[in-house]
Amino acid sequence: MAETLLQELIEGLRVLPGVGPKSAQRMALHLLQREREAAERLGAVLQRAMVEVQHCDVCRNFTEHTVCELCSDEARDASQLCVVESPADVLALERSTDYKGRYFVLMGHLSPLDGVGPAELGLDRLAQLFDQQNIKEVTLATNPTVEGSATANYISDMANKREIRVLQIARGIPVGGELEFADGSTLSVAFSDRTQVN
Amino acid sequence: MAETLLQELIEGLRVLPGVGPKSAQRMALHLLQREREAAERLGAVLQRAMVEVQHCDVCRNFTEHTVCELCSDEARDASQLCVVESPADVLALERSTDYKGRYFVLMGHLSPLDGVGPAELGLDRLAQLFDQQNIKEVTLATNPTVEGSATANYISDMANKREIRVLQIARGIPVGGELEFADGSTLSVAFSDRTQVN
Repeated sequence: MAETLLQELIEGLRVLPGVGPKSAQRMALHLLQREREAAERLGAVLQRAMVEVQHCDVCRNFTEHTVCELCSDEARDASQLCVVESPADVLALERSTDYKGRYFVLMGHLSPLDGVGPAELGLDRLAQLFDQQNIKEVTLATNPTVEGSATANYISDMANKREIRVLQIARGIPVGGELEFADGSTLSVAFSDRTQVN
Repeated sequence: MAETLLQELIEGLRVLPGVGPKSAQRMALHLLQREREAAERLGAVLQRAMVEVQHCDVCRNFTEHTVCELCSDEARDASQLCVVESPADVLALERSTDYKGRYFVLMGHLSPLDGVGPAELGLDRLAQLFDQQNIKEVTLATNPTVEGSATANYISDMANKREIRVLQIARGIPVGGELEFADGSTLSVAFSDRTQVN
């Protein structure tokens, strides 16, 4: 059977993460049967986004502008900077916290074996920010993995040299979690970082 | 926060079946980080497919041509017709069987409460095919559900009137299934339709 447009569409949908041949087929037929207009709009926004969305010149987050909304928002405190690994982390923090400072997005973590060093994470750019902007406080919100912690240490050293206050988000038992099922290192950190109850 | 192109993309991806806000965000960021070119191509094929893919004039399956590949393939036996509910069924049968006849795609099943009657399933068109083409054998491959069976009965009557041979795909225990866990009606059908072993 020759390559049809439907097969091309099914094949194309497989570029989406977690979408195998069966889901791709189900998606393609669903769109053709029920969501033609919305799918056409999706096609247009996909094309636009892939070309226009680039990295913010200041914080490296995704944006279609030179400087992203968060960085150009005068209402946000430019003296506070929160360092995260990915744009998803910015979205998650914005949804769940009332943090009103700015962000810096590493787009990864230090991983020498994969060729990801300080330059790939824009740490030279971060050093510039430290030097040129009047940053008083850095919150490290990298993932509490080996690589994330190594990255946090590196940035912590950079900030310490410049006498910027460094904080890191708390590690401990997740809310709703159970001590019994927490792994040893989490429990150990949670215990040693116990805070005083008023 | 104003609507950004990234948010538009995330919102757009939610048109895909089974994709909620979290998956949509993960997909959007994955595409921007790793699959820009393929995603741009997907955007283009989505737009093209939603406009160009219509129904085959003969069998009602999806195609970007007036008559689909299967219907215009002279190598396929035009005297045999297999009636299915959806384009996905055609793809499944083509993958797993060596059927070399033609198809007729109902794009649904009889469902009077939802306003789906014979006209919506193109049964007038099917009657024309029965009358005009030299169809000798019809295989009913609708789903073995209440609606699918009702639809099959209706088409069976149409074919019987014209003295066309009617077959239906076998119901029974799925290969690899276990009798113990088969539901009563399946087991009952499987037993009464038992076939002779040579």
